[in-house]
Amino acid sequence: MNKSTMVSGFLNSNNMALALDHYQLTMAGAYFTQNLTDFEATFDLFIRKMPLNRNYLIAAGLEQCLHYLENIHFIEEHIEWLRKKPEFEHVNPLFFNEYLPNFRFTGSVRAIPEGTVFFPNEPILEVTAPIIEAQIVETFLLSKIVGQTTIASKASRVVHTAEGRPVIDFGMRRSHDPQAAIFASRACYIGGCAKTSNDFAGFLWDIPVSGTMAHSFIQVYDNEFSAFQDYVNVYPSTFTALIDTYDIIIGTQIASKFKENLGAVRIDSGDLLENSFAVRSILDKEGCFATKIFVTSDLNEYKIKDLMVKNAPIDAFGVGTEMIVSRDEPTLSAVYKLVDFNNSPKIKLSQGKITYPGKKSLHRIKQGTEQYDIIGLKGEELNNEDLLQKVMVNGKSLIPPPILKDVRNYSMKQVSQLPSLYHNISKSVTYQVKTSRGLDNLTAKLTKERRTDI
Amino acid sequence: MNKSTMVSGFLNSNNMALALDHYQLTMAGAYFTQNLTDFEATFDLFIRKMPLNRNYLIAAGLEQCLHYLENIHFIEEHIEWLRKKPEFEHVNPLFFNEYLPNFRFTGSVRAIPEGTVFFPNEPILEVTAPIIEAQIVETFLLSKIVGQTTIASKASRVVHTAEGRPVIDFGMRRSHDPQAAIFASRACYIGGCAKTSNDFAGFLWDIPVSGTMAHSFIQVYDNEFSAFQDYVNVYPSTFTALIDTYDIIIGTQIASKFKENLGAVRIDSGDLLENSFAVRSILDKEGCFATKIFVTSDLNEYKIKDLMVKNAPIDAFGVGTEMIVSRDEPTLSAVYKLVDFNNSPKIKLSQGKITYPGKKSLHRIKQGTEQYDIIGLKGEELNNEDLLQKVMVNGKSLIPPPILKDVRNYSMKQVSQLPSLYHNISKSVTYQVKTSRGLDNLTAKLTKERRTDI
Repeated sequence: MNKSTMVSGFLNSNNMALALDHYQLTMAGAYFTQNLTDFEATFDLFIRKMPLNRNYLIAAGLEQCLHYLENIHFIEEHIEWLRKKPEFEHVNPLFFNEYLPNFRFTGSVRAIPEGTVFFPNEPILEVTAPIIEAQIVETFLLSKIVGQTTIASKASRVVHTAEGRPVIDFGMRRSHDPQAAIFASRACYIGGCAKTSNDFAGFLWDIPVSGTMAHSFIQVYDNEFSAFQDYVNVYPSTFTALIDTYDIIIGTQIASKFKENLGAVRIDSGDLLENSFAVRSILDKEGCFATKIFVTSDLNEYKIKDLMVKNAPIDAFGVGTEMIVSRDEPTLSAVYKLVDFNNSPKIKLSQGKITYPGKKSLHRIKQGTEQYDIIGLKGEELNNEDLLQKVMVNGKSLIPPPILKDVRNYSMKQVSQLPSLYHNISKSVTYQVKTSRGLDNLTAKLTKERRTDI
Repeated sequence: MNKSTMVSGFLNSNNMALALDHYQLTMAGAYFTQNLTDFEATFDLFIRKMPLNRNYLIAAGLEQCLHYLENIHFIEEHIEWLRKKPEFEHVNPLFFNEYLPNFRFTGSVRAIPEGTVFFPNEPILEVTAPIIEAQIVETFLLSKIVGQTTIASKASRVVHTAEGRPVIDFGMRRSHDPQAAIFASRACYIGGCAKTSNDFAGFLWDIPVSGTMAHSFIQVYDNEFSAFQDYVNVYPSTFTALIDTYDIIIGTQIASKFKENLGAVRIDSGDLLENSFAVRSILDKEGCFATKIFVTSDLNEYKIKDLMVKNAPIDAFGVGTEMIVSRDEPTLSAVYKLVDFNNSPKIKLSQGKITYPGKKSLHRIKQGTEQYDIIGLKGEELNNEDLLQKVMVNGKSLIPPPILKDVRNYSMKQVSQLPSLYHNISKSVTYQVKTSRGLDNLTAKLTKERRTDI
């Protein structure tokens, strides 16, 4: 922790090249020593299987991937640490003395835009670069895409279930790391959340932030009235009263005394259905007709669905734990696979883990209410726009950092345009992803060659 | 992303104060404006409920928490962003002009050491500081402890199930963020993993790193023999052959030709039980008796248990996805609750979310093969060592960063000394956590007062 890369319990930012799996460097050392450094390789990043409880996924994390690729470099302190490892004894010393110190990413990237709905086996990001470069960036790209895509996809389900009532991301405290939380909140916004409690994410991407008071604020005072009074004095126009610190009925009655300022009340415990009806009834009786009810407490899409179906008088949902780590499906089977080397398409035949060969294209076909996708070969005539767009050439990004609000709108539109059977949160429906004739032929040819070969 | 806080797709490290929930700042603004700034508060950090599939938890993340507390400060760019928010209109402007620019954490911390086994409701970290300071650090501390504790606890189950066969953390690519992965790998090591594939974690904490080759390395060559040959030339003494790129039987036969150098083979697909027997048989037939078998492929404690029970000839396990996000239980119900303000113990009575009041002590009692814990009041006579140790005073850490290897050994010893019923990975067993007479009396007294009050 006293190493120069660590400050404030956080990682320093300027040296993330070492954020990789060790085998990327052992392979790189072998390629370098065997003079394979400059051969060009293409890798596809895709998800192998749809998680059990999902019908679609939403791509997120590309902005950070491009930023990383534009800036990646190794610092001397890290190189020195690597150089001393005994397993590198027979690696050409120029690898550590010249190659790594001068390492930059010089390749190209094609990708589907952030916020795009996609499905398993579809390439969502494709890297073409000299083999060592393409290999060294593997793990960072995977983790960045996995984290944000997992969480954006979960958030989309939660938001869609709330049918237009705002969903606010409250999850930072239950995330896997404060740094991860900042990107997780970004993903929640892409998935359609209206606001976040996470100030750092708000600052970075202009996400509206939201926050009122914790139970501790109430407890600091002798009674709830004094706590509310002090708060109202400072925040007269943004007062949301937390009413369940001691007794929710009495808490609501006390909050009602601040009728003029009482924008909302927050319920954070007990039976939310029952409590929301009881609280609404008191609020109405006290004439607080404009006061909204905001609920939190281990919410997810299923609990929100239940509250919606039962017409709970709830105006907004705060969702934390379940969304920020995508609790039921907290990760994705994302892989990064070689599909072309030195202009020859490559295949992998491992049991249950076959990989389609070659550089690809991705197409979405809509026919009436039907919809399906086709994975084709790059350049194959398929009469349809390729969802994979060129986003980086020679290590330079071709696209500006997106306006996150636009990404959110795009994602929500994509989801709303999906045939409604894919919106079902309780039933798995498999979206059809076809392969083109060109891709089928290439796969068959390479499988046969490989089988004959071995 | 072009803000000065972001480099290489990573967050800068020197400004993490903004990594908080917005309500911490609205409350802070209220406290400051109402002149409550200097009142001292004590907060307990604890886990409310044991996750369904766990019988014990392992504390991790304290080192990063202390580091954060020693370094936290707000930078002008962030303060400026906050100051402009309309909701802060009535906050005393000195809050932004003087208080936040000079903000430092000046409080004290008590905590149980990293690697300690613990249970729900037990305070694992206690912060005592002026109320605003104690409140502002809430979310960072929660997220840091939640992430690492969740993953260390999962890793411990996996490692214990492998009965001494090394478990290697391979999870980075499936984590929620590359930065989170670095701390997750730290947690896996605390939980007992032997090595990690994560070079950054290896660099920071001297964790042994491990890595060989990906399928892409094999695919780059015309055939497996050439790939293995090139690799062996560069890594003659650390050769682990990945044998399942095309056909695992043929792959093993080809790898066997490098008998002298073949330290291990890795199986990454198919039925691992069947494949491990088949591969062992070929290796033995070819005279590769010393060659070890290393398996990977969506492993978890249940799959490892099954392989162990069936005596699979496996020498080491690589575990990724399931461990790095603690897939079955990816987070914890961690909370940070006010228990004392201005030297008065505080209680919270929310339905189903009651919080014990007062500053506490934590004791582990062993009687023969029986074991249980007692939560008492700080200073209460309980004839037993307090697991909560003073680790920070006046904002300065009292303990050096731990040697992570020692934390790992301590954690593994703690787990092995638990009564064996808690080692059962398939059955929930509740460990007894009692409360002392002093704590019971205080809870009853405050509950009664509060009920009378309202």
